[in-house]
Amino acid sequence: MHEIFLDELKKLNTSFMELGVFVNDQIDLATRAFVDHDKTVAKDLVKKHSQIQDEATKIEEEALKLMALQQPVATDFRVVISILKAITDIERIGENSVSISWETIRLKGNPRSSEVEAIISEMTHNVRRMLVQVLTAYVQDDEKMAREVAARDTEIDLAYVKVRQMIIDKIEKDPQKAVASSSYFMVTRLLERIGDHIVNLASWVIYKTSGELEKLENETEVQTK
Amino acid sequence: MHEIFLDELKKLNTSFMELGVFVNDQIDLATRAFVDHDKTVAKDLVKKHSQIQDEATKIEEEALKLMALQQPVATDFRVVISILKAITDIERIGENSVSISWETIRLKGNPRSSEVEAIISEMTHNVRRMLVQVLTAYVQDDEKMAREVAARDTEIDLAYVKVRQMIIDKIEKDPQKAVASSSYFMVTRLLERIGDHIVNLASWVIYKTSGELEKLENETEVQTK
Repeated sequence: MHEIFLDELKKLNTSFMELGVFVNDQIDLATRAFVDHDKTVAKDLVKKHSQIQDEATKIEEEALKLMALQQPVATDFRVVISILKAITDIERIGENSVSISWETIRLKGNPRSSEVEAIISEMTHNVRRMLVQVLTAYVQDDEKMAREVAARDTEIDLAYVKVRQMIIDKIEKDPQKAVASSSYFMVTRLLERIGDHIVNLASWVIYKTSGELEKLENETEVQTK
Repeated sequence: MHEIFLDELKKLNTSFMELGVFVNDQIDLATRAFVDHDKTVAKDLVKKHSQIQDEATKIEEEALKLMALQQPVATDFRVVISILKAITDIERIGENSVSISWETIRLKGNPRSSEVEAIISEMTHNVRRMLVQVLTAYVQDDEKMAREVAARDTEIDLAYVKVRQMIIDKIEKDPQKAVASSSYFMVTRLLERIGDHIVNLASWVIYKTSGELEKLENETEVQTK
């Protein structure tokens, strides 16, 4: 009986990781399409939204089934619970990347800023690295790594604040950029939100490993000067 | 034994509802402070952030304890799971209202638009009504009401798209309003996100009532013309 459970749990873990990696690719594709003004790719990514949602729901259903039928205890209990909770953050990261694609679809060939787009690319790079690392920490039950990843969310928050001020300055100089700027606001905010979800994932790694519900700070709102 | 469990479950339900109602008040206070440019109230609301987080974590811990020690089945299982999942949406609604307060703190006495602020007030009113109704649907196991509330999220999404276009038009006419406008973008987006979390809550009411994991659509991204 316990062997069957462990087998099911292994499958669940694999599905969870696979969706995490898939979503990580989506972030890359979404911001790249945004920077390239590629509406065709963006529309394609929007279509994949329901795929992410369906897969997340399937994982949730599986976790609930395991929980109800097998009534796991101790470590097994924590593994199932952490997947049941963390899957929502993976799903939200997917939603945020779909929202980035919507920003691309809404673009109207307005004047753009290569300076802001460079920061967006860098934020994307950092956020994706953090996501891979938190997923690795999850597999390896590495609480220390989870904490390190979470601490780096501050860099993402600072980049967001910086780019926001940059956008405001640009609009004041050149109001014709207002439409493009509204997209910049949103895309950087969405990346910042993805960073917050990664912090939540780190908290679930800690729960899975230690049994402690320690919520790491994910809302380092930084006051602009 | 089961009587003690039911007693604990009742307490858990009460705490969940109380936090829901508290968070609903926070939305009101946060947007009112934003419209009134009241930084004192905003700073006070930011301080309450950890209070919401701590209470949400306490509810989560309690739900996990009940789940692990009592291994509830059938309806009881669904009630505990729905609280365990829905509490995150309540917490996020709280976070979003704190982010609104941060926008207030960042304001710099820039020229404002009463037209946009009127829509923000209306969005707040609608979102808060939806939150009260979904909490009511939760207590009464009213799946029909939950679906009705979720369907009304489209109105929130449309208001967001409308106000966004309005803000862009205003910036193009008067670039000096760029800083205030970035706040308008954010506050309306935050209210729109609160609407999405209410839809998630509606999905958990359906799960609690029927046992079905039916995710209601929460991301009606509407393409601006």
